[in-house]
Amino acid sequence: MQDFASDNYAGVCPEALRALVEANASGHEVAYGDDSWTRRVCDRLRALFETDCEVFFVFNGTAANSLALASLCQSYQSVICHELAHVETDECGGPEFFSNGSKLITSRGPLGKLDPVAIEALVTRRNDIHSPRPKAVTLTQATEVGTLYTVEEVRAISEVAHRHGMSVHMDGARFANAVAALAVSPADMTWRAGVDVLCFGGTKNGLPVGEAVVFFKKSLAADFAYRVKQAGQLASKMRFISAPWLGLLDDDVWLRNARHANAMARLLAERIGAIPGVRIMFPPQANAVFAELPVDAARTLRQNGWVFYDFIAAGGSRLMCAWDTAPETVARFAAELNAAVMAGRAVAPAAVPPIEPTAA
Amino acid sequence: MQDFASDNYAGVCPEALRALVEANASGHEVAYGDDSWTRRVCDRLRALFETDCEVFFVFNGTAANSLALASLCQSYQSVICHELAHVETDECGGPEFFSNGSKLITSRGPLGKLDPVAIEALVTRRNDIHSPRPKAVTLTQATEVGTLYTVEEVRAISEVAHRHGMSVHMDGARFANAVAALAVSPADMTWRAGVDVLCFGGTKNGLPVGEAVVFFKKSLAADFAYRVKQAGQLASKMRFISAPWLGLLDDDVWLRNARHANAMARLLAERIGAIPGVRIMFPPQANAVFAELPVDAARTLRQNGWVFYDFIAAGGSRLMCAWDTAPETVARFAAELNAAVMAGRAVAPAAVPPIEPTAA
Amino acid sequence: MQDFASDNYAGVCPEALRALVEANASGHEVAYGDDSWTRRVCDRLRALFETDCEVFFVFNGTAANSLALASLCQSYQSVICHELAHVETDECGGPEFFSNGSKLITSRGPLGKLDPVAIEALVTRRNDIHSPRPKAVTLTQATEVGTLYTVEEVRAISEVAHRHGMSVHMDGARFANAVAALAVSPADMTWRAGVDVLCFGGTKNGLPVGEAVVFFKKSLAADFAYRVKQAGQLASKMRFISAPWLGLLDDDVWLRNARHANAMARLLAERIGAIPGVRIMFPPQANAVFAELPVDAARTLRQNGWVFYDFIAAGGSRLMCAWDTAPETVARFAAELNAAVMAGRAVAPAAVPPIEPTAA
Amino acid sequence: MQDFASDNYAGVCPEALRALVEANASGHEVAYGDDSWTRRVCDRLRALFETDCEVFFVFNGTAANSLALASLCQSYQSVICHELAHVETDECGGPEFFSNGSKLITSRGPLGKLDPVAIEALVTRRNDIHSPRPKAVTLTQATEVGTLYTVEEVRAISEVAHRHGMSVHMDGARFANAVAALAVSPADMTWRAGVDVLCFGGTKNGLPVGEAVVFFKKSLAADFAYRVKQAGQLASKMRFISAPWLGLLDDDVWLRNARHANAMARLLAERIGAIPGVRIMFPPQANAVFAELPVDAARTLRQNGWVFYDFIAAGGSRLMCAWDTAPETVARFAAELNAAVMAGRAVAPAAVPPIEPTAA
Repeated sequence: MQDFASDNYAGVCPEALRALVEANASGHEVAYGDDSWTRRVCDRLRALFETDCEVFFVFNGTAANSLALASLCQSYQSVICHELAHVETDECGGPEFFSNGSKLITSRGPLGKLDPVAIEALVTRRNDIHSPRPKAVTLTQATEVGTLYTVEEVRAISEVAHRHGMSVHMDGARFANAVAALAVSPADMTWRAGVDVLCFGGTKNGLPVGEAVVFFKKSLAADFAYRVKQAGQLASKMRFISAPWLGLLDDDVWLRNARHANAMARLLAERIGAIPGVRIMFPPQANAVFAELPVDAARTLRQNGWVFYDFIAAGGSRLMCAWDTAPETVARFAAELNAAVMAGRAVAPAAVPPIEPTAA
Repeated sequence: MQDFASDNYAGVCPEALRALVEANASGHEVAYGDDSWTRRVCDRLRALFETDCEVFFVFNGTAANSLALASLCQSYQSVICHELAHVETDECGGPEFFSNGSKLITSRGPLGKLDPVAIEALVTRRNDIHSPRPKAVTLTQATEVGTLYTVEEVRAISEVAHRHGMSVHMDGARFANAVAALAVSPADMTWRAGVDVLCFGGTKNGLPVGEAVVFFKKSLAADFAYRVKQAGQLASKMRFISAPWLGLLDDDVWLRNARHANAMARLLAERIGAIPGVRIMFPPQANAVFAELPVDAARTLRQNGWVFYDFIAAGGSRLMCAWDTAPETVARFAAELNAAVMAGRAVAPAAVPPIEPTAA
Repeated sequence: MQDFASDNYAGVCPEALRALVEANASGHEVAYGDDSWTRRVCDRLRALFETDCEVFFVFNGTAANSLALASLCQSYQSVICHELAHVETDECGGPEFFSNGSKLITSRGPLGKLDPVAIEALVTRRNDIHSPRPKAVTLTQATEVGTLYTVEEVRAISEVAHRHGMSVHMDGARFANAVAALAVSPADMTWRAGVDVLCFGGTKNGLPVGEAVVFFKKSLAADFAYRVKQAGQLASKMRFISAPWLGLLDDDVWLRNARHANAMARLLAERIGAIPGVRIMFPPQANAVFAELPVDAARTLRQNGWVFYDFIAAGGSRLMCAWDTAPETVARFAAELNAAVMAGRAVAPAAVPPIEPTAA
Repeated sequence: MQDFASDNYAGVCPEALRALVEANASGHEVAYGDDSWTRRVCDRLRALFETDCEVFFVFNGTAANSLALASLCQSYQSVICHELAHVETDECGGPEFFSNGSKLITSRGPLGKLDPVAIEALVTRRNDIHSPRPKAVTLTQATEVGTLYTVEEVRAISEVAHRHGMSVHMDGARFANAVAALAVSPADMTWRAGVDVLCFGGTKNGLPVGEAVVFFKKSLAADFAYRVKQAGQLASKMRFISAPWLGLLDDDVWLRNARHANAMARLLAERIGAIPGVRIMFPPQANAVFAELPVDAARTLRQNGWVFYDFIAAGGSRLMCAWDTAPETVARFAAELNAAVMAGRAVAPAAVPPIEPTAA
């Protein structure tokens, strides 16, 4: 398969797989996370973040974000998110399900990013019992459109949030890509900038399954273990979720994976951005390229076997790079796109755009 | 108190109160709705709607709409509503709570009304598992901005909804005002136009407490009695919820009440619409007048004791008329507004608008 | 109808009805509880309980108890209740619905009463993440079988509960009957004995609709208003829920009503207890009599038009007295039962007991 | 570690691990289950069950059982289970959370097994709106106490369930052990005996993570994919959940693993059952041995490093055998237990039993 469909189309990186296999060699281990592998990973994450945070592992991003948000607000409260936020657009109501009804209040902002002024306007707009009080802000880093919040931007949002009694949640499905791209420390990017809880994505960075939920504000984690258990997110053979993280964390594999994916996205944007009729929609700051492609050329590429999704919310196509995306694949895609565009320029354009599956 | 704050500031109309008192005279009655008063009212409603519908009584509009919608879709499905719909803006997440997470998908449309084309676009936009499938459309009649759907408009929406496997719910908090204004039969306005379930509001029409949930598509009501019970909406002394409906239904008091409120709204719009600087925002088709009032004049009126709310979602002020709003009150309000506007014209305008409570 | 079916078969007592009618005379009032009637009743309840408690009104007992319990624990925690508790047996899963899954952990105990030793055993039995931690104890006063906790018993339960970090909730659907029977002050019966939140039932004491939720531990009430709103329990025309309480509270009508019902139950127990073959199952300390009646005699009475329920959980028949139960009704029931028993003794006993509806 | 703590203390069996590694070799694969590995496993399971069933993969047993039950009943309905059922005792309210409140109604029965007569009594006990109507029966095969339902017993339960409009769910966390022990076909054990949905456990049989939910009654699975997604149970890199099943299914590894574990349990029961003072509590029909051990001897074993849990619900100790439990481990445990018992017989017994962690 040749694709820029999603970073979750990629497999497990060798280091993570090796750690998983090693974790199996130790024979029997205590279940439900009270094992030595899980303890080591938690300690490693605490070292990485340079603080005594609370770490939990859950199975996927839907659960990580939904459970984290549910721990930040009650059903009659609300969460402020960007209108393009994954929790709003692609979780089939997961956050509302886990929280038993907390509304997501959407805000706009350029480049897929929340704006502190807009957040403040939302929070102060109403103060009556008929409207659920915002108790959390969630921001996605890197964003759903492949852009990044600077540390200062995160801090500004946190400042507004905390001033109004809200917690700050970071959806870090692609946190590694953000840290790699911004070249800041994980601590600076999160708790030092006011983030209270981070969902640190591992799957898109090279794990088989599993995300870490990291509470910097420890009081918020008081009952989280029970919440995880009740919601069906507690792995019995936890070591197989946690140990692969060691593979990522040792020797900064997670950053290497992310840097590679980011570099491939930049390369891809550079190559296809130069093709006539192609418009890069957002600065490719992480591992995604959003581009408007000529309709006929996009269709041709798909007929040639390339897999990628249209981004329904904002138009255009989304091209994701993974930890294992090869430069040759980028080059081949760009070349085929260029050829298709050139061929298309010689003929009449197609009237009807193809219907494509949604991004995932 | 002199106010145009809300039709739920009004009390109980004499006929409803009389029925309540009468219901008490019969001594002991079977509890939980298996009493003769409740049976009579249900039969009366079936006669009114000219069909063998299923009727339930619940305590208020939040519950009526939320429970009805919860019976139309599962937690992983969604409901299409107007962005100004009360269920979206003023229920503190009630619908999501009762349904355990069904998302409300908002649509736009002029005059506070849903548009069939926009609905179809929303339904067909995505068809993947990451997005909750729309299973119901809810429309408010009369709308939150005091406008009305024609029977044809309701039918067009129902047609789209049913074609895509969605049920049609009508939030009829002010159903009486709509029927009175359009001079159509309740049946024509609802099931004959494709409405599957109606929340028929009584409180704003002159009852002390209680709304009727009317299922025209009876299969949808199969377990509704259990749902009502579990959700804390089953009155033990049900006759005191149901009997006052007899007071409304006998001699068409409900229509008389609604016609009066509608007439007062028209009168009010006429009177204040003629005042310089006042802009009527929506055609006053039911019992509400939305108007932009000069800031200083609005403040003066409030200082004079008038109570009315600003409409945060769309700006301006909302002036509601009730079954008992007196023509003299309308005249006095218009006169005082006119005086305030005239006085304001003679001096410099105030710089800062007053902060007012939200509409309810 | 002649019945001992339920105290919610009775109507509204004259004083409550008068207050409701008076509340209507004041014309327009602010909605959602910010009216003068509601404020007066809240102040009256604070005076009655001799403390600055937080008071909320909801529509019925299902909601009062379920919302109160939901405010005491999260979905992954649990509530300890008696196995005969109404919240366990007769709410169709209401508490679990409102709390989104908090388990009710049932305990046994004689006379329908929780035992502090059994509570402690339940709490300390497990301490692992696979079992929901008990965070509340709920006791019903008067109990579901018509018995009473003494103040000392309530205090002993509270002591165990608080020692283990649990809150104490009292289901007071028949709180008036308990206070009247024990001749203690409402304060002594509740917060001075450690009760954190009381659901003070009005309906069974003579109101048309509505219960009060009284938080003695005010911190627990922090967000309760939002909870009430979201769950569809906020009355818009609140005065019609609250004002009738004034009718009950003025001149201690609530106690007079309760004393009368209690006296009728004692009289009933005395009269039928003397009939051969009748066994009084529990001491009739409040307004209920539970009795094993000869099967044929019970059937005869029902054929004669008497309405009363069997108590499925514990066997026997439940005979409830209300604020308006007449001594003559008691006398007539006893006489007819005696006659039926005597007639039955002269013939062969029926083989098959009739199937009767459940208690409600 | 030497233990009989739980079959989830064991690691991944070689065949499953090999399949996982192989699945990674194929490079990019479509996410969310639309990959070739997942399709192959689903087809294999359909072949195994000899019917066109619907197959879904979720992350763990809590989710498998809770989601399956939630798809069988609404929040206002109930599920009948044994009082020792894992869903009742060890899921921290998971089923109630996923269903938003469906009550678990517990039944008793010898050997940890439900009895059709008792089920029928529960279903027909009440038929009123205050009690949630049972809509599903769940039985655990093998049971929580290591016993087995015969095919005839399953059929008898299914017959009662279906006669009363209930679906039949089988918690098959140790389904493999049951099939291996009874030497019946998976089809005979499930749908041919009336089971509508099976949660087929893989983790305890040698997988790293992941359970299969198998709907034999396909109409019940209509929306299950959405339910899985919303509840955070849809793996993006699904192949790593599904492919290891191939390792189990190829060459009947799953049965070999289960037969081995069962044989070890029988051996263990035989060996320790012969020791004076040890009582085997239930026939060791699957891979568990429940035994009352002399208190001092149990403590000595634990001091020696043996790990095993007490079974709080029924008393005694639970000794679980896994796919990799070595006969030597069994022999050593039995020998050490015997030695400890003999030593204990020579001295005075300890007065106070040690407090041990709960079973998991």
